Amino acid sequence: MADISTTMPLVTDSVRQAYKKIKARVYKTPLLTNKTIDSIASSSSAGKGGPEFNIYFKCENYQRIGAFKARGAFHAVTHLVEVMGIEEVRRRGLVTHSSGNHAQALALASSEFGIPAYIVMPTISTPSKISGTQAYTEHVIFSGSTSQEREAKVQEVIDNTGAILIPPYDHPDIMLGQGTAALEMHEQYQTKKAEQGQPPRLRAVLTPLGGGGLLSGTAIYFSESPDTAIVGCEPSYQGGNDGEMGLNANPPKRIETVKTLTIADGLRTPVGLSPWQIFISTNDDPGAKKRLLEGIYSVSEEQIKHAMKLVLERMKVFVEPSAVVPLAVVLYNEKFREWAHSRQKAEGVESWDIGIILSGGNTTIDAIMGIFGTKGEDPVRETRKERRAEGTEGLDGKSVAENVAG
Amino acid sequence: MADISTTMPLVTDSVRQAYKKIKARVYKTPLLTNKTIDSIASSSSAGKGGPEFNIYFKCENYQRIGAFKARGAFHAVTHLVEVMGIEEVRRRGLVTHSSGNHAQALALASSEFGIPAYIVMPTISTPSKISGTQAYTEHVIFSGSTSQEREAKVQEVIDNTGAILIPPYDHPDIMLGQGTAALEMHEQYQTKKAEQGQPPRLRAVLTPLGGGGLLSGTAIYFSESPDTAIVGCEPSYQGGNDGEMGLNANPPKRIETVKTLTIADGLRTPVGLSPWQIFISTNDDPGAKKRLLEGIYSVSEEQIKHAMKLVLERMKVFVEPSAVVPLAVVLYNEKFREWAHSRQKAEGVESWDIGIILSGGNTTIDAIMGIFGTKGEDPVRETRKERRAEGTEGLDGKSVAENVAG
Repeated sequence: MADISTTMPLVTDSVRQAYKKIKARVYKTPLLTNKTIDSIASSSSAGKGGPEFNIYFKCENYQRIGAFKARGAFHAVTHLVEVMGIEEVRRRGLVTHSSGNHAQALALASSEFGIPAYIVMPTISTPSKISGTQAYTEHVIFSGSTSQEREAKVQEVIDNTGAILIPPYDHPDIMLGQGTAALEMHEQYQTKKAEQGQPPRLRAVLTPLGGGGLLSGTAIYFSESPDTAIVGCEPSYQGGNDGEMGLNANPPKRIETVKTLTIADGLRTPVGLSPWQIFISTNDDPGAKKRLLEGIYSVSEEQIKHAMKLVLERMKVFVEPSAVVPLAVVLYNEKFREWAHSRQKAEGVESWDIGIILSGGNTTIDAIMGIFGTKGEDPVRETRKERRAEGTEGLDGKSVAENVAG
Repeated sequence: MADISTTMPLVTDSVRQAYKKIKARVYKTPLLTNKTIDSIASSSSAGKGGPEFNIYFKCENYQRIGAFKARGAFHAVTHLVEVMGIEEVRRRGLVTHSSGNHAQALALASSEFGIPAYIVMPTISTPSKISGTQAYTEHVIFSGSTSQEREAKVQEVIDNTGAILIPPYDHPDIMLGQGTAALEMHEQYQTKKAEQGQPPRLRAVLTPLGGGGLLSGTAIYFSESPDTAIVGCEPSYQGGNDGEMGLNANPPKRIETVKTLTIADGLRTPVGLSPWQIFISTNDDPGAKKRLLEGIYSVSEEQIKHAMKLVLERMKVFVEPSAVVPLAVVLYNEKFREWAHSRQKAEGVESWDIGIILSGGNTTIDAIMGIFGTKGEDPVRETRKERRAEGTEGLDGKSVAENVAG
C-alpha cells in the first residue's frame, strides 16, 4: 500500500481532498428524517424527563456495494495509483481480508481500475457478501474467522503474487475516504436547514464502531467543529465493546483481540491502531480545541434488534444489524441519554439535531429470519411499561412512518 | 361523498388539477433505479432471447402513511370540503372501510382537516395497519372480512352518525388523486432523462391492481400519451386475478366477488365499477387514440415472494408484498415478456424504459417471517436452471445492489 509518508495529514481539509477524488465514483446517498423515530427517541425516560432529538439518517446502505466501505476503498486505490502508477499496481494486484463489505468494496474499486484483486474472506461470512464480492473478482480466498487466520492467508497471497495490501480500516487513506460520508451528511444537513430557514447546528454525530475507519474519518472531518460531538457505538455482546472498554480504562488502552459473534457482524473486529490514535487525541488548533471523540457507548443484541425493526418497519429502509447500533444507543443507552439530557439542560435548548450514519444494508431475508426467529424481551415494551407506570407515556402509536427524503 | 356530478372529467388535466390541490400535503417520493434488477429482468428467457428493460421504481412506500393511498384520500377530502364547506363536513364526519392503507390514509387526511373519521376495518387486518389507523382516529370499528360484512357495518355507521362515505377506490376523486403518483413519476423520469441528455420515452407503466384506484388513475394520466402502455398486475392465487379474468372474457365482464388470501393483502378486493369503466375504454381524442389499459397479467405467490426478496435485499427498499406484484410480472410472466419482446423487435429497439409503482411498505418483520417461513420452489433458480441448460446464462451474481436516487 502507499507508504504512510505519502498520505495526507489527518485534518478536515484532507477529507475534502479525498471527496474530490472519489466524488464521481460514489453515490450521494440520501439524508432521511422520520417523525415516528424522533418521537420514540425523544420520549422522556422513566418519568424523569429526557433528551429530545431530531435525527438525520445518512443512508449509506444505498451506497455502491450497499455500504460506506466503497468510499475508503475508492480513495485508497485512487491514491495508490497516483503514487505508484497504474501499470505497476495492475502488475502486482491488490489484496485484503474482510468479513464482507470491505471485500466487496475493494473488489469493485479494483475492477473499475482494471486491477486484479485477491480477497481473503472468512468462510462464515454472510453468503450475500461472498457472492457480492465474487461478482467483481475471480480471486476470493477463504480463511478461518480470527484476525490471525485471515492475516496468515493474506501473507500467503502477498508471498505468492506480490500483491499490495489495502487493509479494511487501519490506514489513513481508508479513514479519510470513510470520512467523506460525514462530509456529505454535513453538507446535506446544512442545505436542509437553509431550506427551512433555520440555522444549522448539528450537536452530535454517531457512527457504528468496528475497526474504526468510519468513526475516525468522521472525527477527523468534524475536528474543526467544536459544536459537534462525535460518538462511537458498539455491540456489548461477548466483549464486542472493545472500544468502549479500552477508552474507559485508566489510562485508556487499546484492546487488540475480540471474539464475539454479535448479530452486528460488521462490528466484530477490534479497533485498529490508526483509528485508535484519533480516538484518544485532542485537536488543539487555536480556537478549535476539542476531544476528537466524545465517547463510546454500547448496546445489547435485543436493543440492536429492536432498532432494526424500527428502521425497517417505520422508515422502510432495509439495513443490516451493524447499521442500527447508533440508533440503539440513542434509544436505549441510558448513559448516552443522560449525557445528552444534561447538556441540553445546560445549554437551555429544547432539542438537539443529531446525525446517524446508517452504515450498510447487506443482509438477507434468511439472515433476518435467523435473527428474529427467537424471541427475546422487547426493550421498547419494557421501557414503555416503566414510562406508563410513571404516568409520562404519551407517544405510543401516535404517529406512523413519515420519511422525508433529502 | 361529493356528488359525482361535481367531480372533474377523467382526463389527464384533471390529474394535474388534483396534484395542485394535494401537492403541499403529500411527499414527493423518490424515483429509483437498480442495475442488478435490470440485469435480471433483461436476461434472455429460456434461451430464446428476451426483452430488455430499464426499470424506474416510484417509491410510494415512502409516501405519508407508507402508501400511495394518502394521495386519493387527501384529494377526495379536499374536494368534498370545497363543495360542501368545512363546517358541514366536520359536523357529519367521514366513514370508510378498508383492510388497511386507505383506512390510515383517510384517518390522516381527516385529522389534518379536523374532521371526525369512522374507519371500518376487518379484524384480520395487519396489526401495524390497525395501529397506524388508530394513531389518527379514535373511531376504528371492526367487521368481518368480506365486502358484504364491511359494507353492512359502514351502513350502520352512516345511519347512526350521518357520516359521508369516502370509498377506498370506487370514486373519480380517489382515482384522480391516485393518478398523481403517475404524474410525479413521469415528471421525475423526464427530469432524469434530461440530465442524462437522453430523450424521454417511457414505454410502459405497471401498477398493482386491487380495487383499481391506482391503475385507473395511472391510465387516466397517461391517456394522452399513446407511446406509454398501461399494465395492471395481480396475484393469481385463489382467483385474485379477477381483473385479468374479467378483461379476457369475451365479452369483457367485471367479476364482482373475490375471496383470496393472497400474501398481496392490498390486492384482495374485486375491481370497482368506476375503475373498470376506464379499463375497457379507448381514448379517441383525435391524434391520441389508444386503449387506456394495455392488459392485465398475474403472478403466483412464489413469484411475488421472490420479487419481494429482490427489492428488499438488492434495492434495500422495504416494501409490502402487494407493491412488488408488477416487478414479479416483469420478471416472470411469460405472456407479458413475450408481448414486450415482440414489440421491442418490431420497433427495432434494444430496450425499453418502463415505470413501476412500488405502492406501499406497510408490513412487519413478523409478517415477513410468516411469508418466508415456509419454503417453496424458487422461481429464479428454476428459470436459471433452464437458462443454464440452454447455455445462455451469464448474469448470475454478476452485479450487486446499486440504486440511484432521483
